[in-house]
Amino acid sequence: MTTSPFIVVFALYNRVTQLDFTGPHEVFWRLPGAQCVVASAGGGEIHADGGLTISNVQRLADIPHADLICVPGGFGVIEAMEDAEFVREVRRLADGARYVTSVCTGSLVLGAAGLLRGKRAGCHWAWRNLLPAFGATVDEARVVRDGNLITGGGVTAGIDMALTVMADIAGVEHAQAVQLGIEYAPAPPFDCGRPERAAQEILEAVTSRLDRLRADRHDAVQRAAQRL
Amino acid sequence: MTTSPFIVVFALYNRVTQLDFTGPHEVFWRLPGAQCVVASAGGGEIHADGGLTISNVQRLADIPHADLICVPGGFGVIEAMEDAEFVREVRRLADGARYVTSVCTGSLVLGAAGLLRGKRAGCHWAWRNLLPAFGATVDEARVVRDGNLITGGGVTAGIDMALTVMADIAGVEHAQAVQLGIEYAPAPPFDCGRPERAAQEILEAVTSRLDRLRADRHDAVQRAAQRL
Repeated sequence: MTTSPFIVVFALYNRVTQLDFTGPHEVFWRLPGAQCVVASAGGGEIHADGGLTISNVQRLADIPHADLICVPGGFGVIEAMEDAEFVREVRRLADGARYVTSVCTGSLVLGAAGLLRGKRAGCHWAWRNLLPAFGATVDEARVVRDGNLITGGGVTAGIDMALTVMADIAGVEHAQAVQLGIEYAPAPPFDCGRPERAAQEILEAVTSRLDRLRADRHDAVQRAAQRL
Repeated sequence: MTTSPFIVVFALYNRVTQLDFTGPHEVFWRLPGAQCVVASAGGGEIHADGGLTISNVQRLADIPHADLICVPGGFGVIEAMEDAEFVREVRRLADGARYVTSVCTGSLVLGAAGLLRGKRAGCHWAWRNLLPAFGATVDEARVVRDGNLITGGGVTAGIDMALTVMADIAGVEHAQAVQLGIEYAPAPPFDCGRPERAAQEILEAVTSRLDRLRADRHDAVQRAAQRL
């Protein structure tokens, strides 16, 4: 064991979905010797979807090294993919990291950084079809591991992803203790959290709302893939 | 339907466990017509357990009315229970609210505000035994409903609580659409999130760590109960 901290960097941007990273953050700060850092291209404050403001946000360029990087998704993911500095810093930190992780549409940012080529990867169920443009093979699992790349499904999958990675870093017993500590014995009120489980009319309602974003996201992914 | 927004107030304090309220926040901002407000006794910034800083926090005293109030738990819960202004403002907003909710040790704050007398209530599994001092009957369910009081178990139970309440407010179909939207089909890596499911040595490790807080929390609850 080294005595230097295990640096966990959450790479944020405006209109991030906060639960994508607050779930993993609640897990990873309980990792022995970990130091969790929230960072963005510009630092300062991040305004999440839904109105939460996160402050004391570092600048990614000021962080020399990450042991683990986690990129969350969100409605601001197009702007994130098109922010050259953000994508470059994610790539730089990922290149030196022991674990490269994402939640939800965060995997599109990893794709834009060229980190998904030839890899299996996950994404929010509604956006998985955008992954092949980055050379990735879609995997529908909630937590997808391919080497040191661990990509999660939508939003709440980040908690499962983080506990899975924690078991790898700190051992199964520590991960179980953290899971018990945060009383993670989920009991969802409905069995509808994946498209194949939801009623047809619920799936159609959600899909039609998201379809308004589809053309713009598709185009942004094509542009990002062409830049690689 | 009224056209005025449905005001959801998260009553925060320093050393709150952020996932206790970020989970419900991710659900409730998707409630049609909702306005989510994060507030504390003093306003400004809140420093959560684990290092996240939340800013643009309102002052509770400046909020005229809440339709729903949610009190999260955290390592700072003793200071929260002993902050007379915080407890008074929670009581004032709860008195006018349609739903009074808590997650984790947030139920101890509701207890300190006199809101648990004669009620069934939940709490983080390790701290349920503190509830009877406030006149509550312990309920070990993950989401406990007694009239307009809905109290959740530890940390991650807030997501289940919020979806349950959302179904009540906006209907089952809308709650299911939100659950699908945040891909809430949890797949915990271990089956150990409740004390009766965890291995004995894991339970003992977590309990012994928490036992360091036990005397202080017990004393704080006794003092708070005597003030009622």
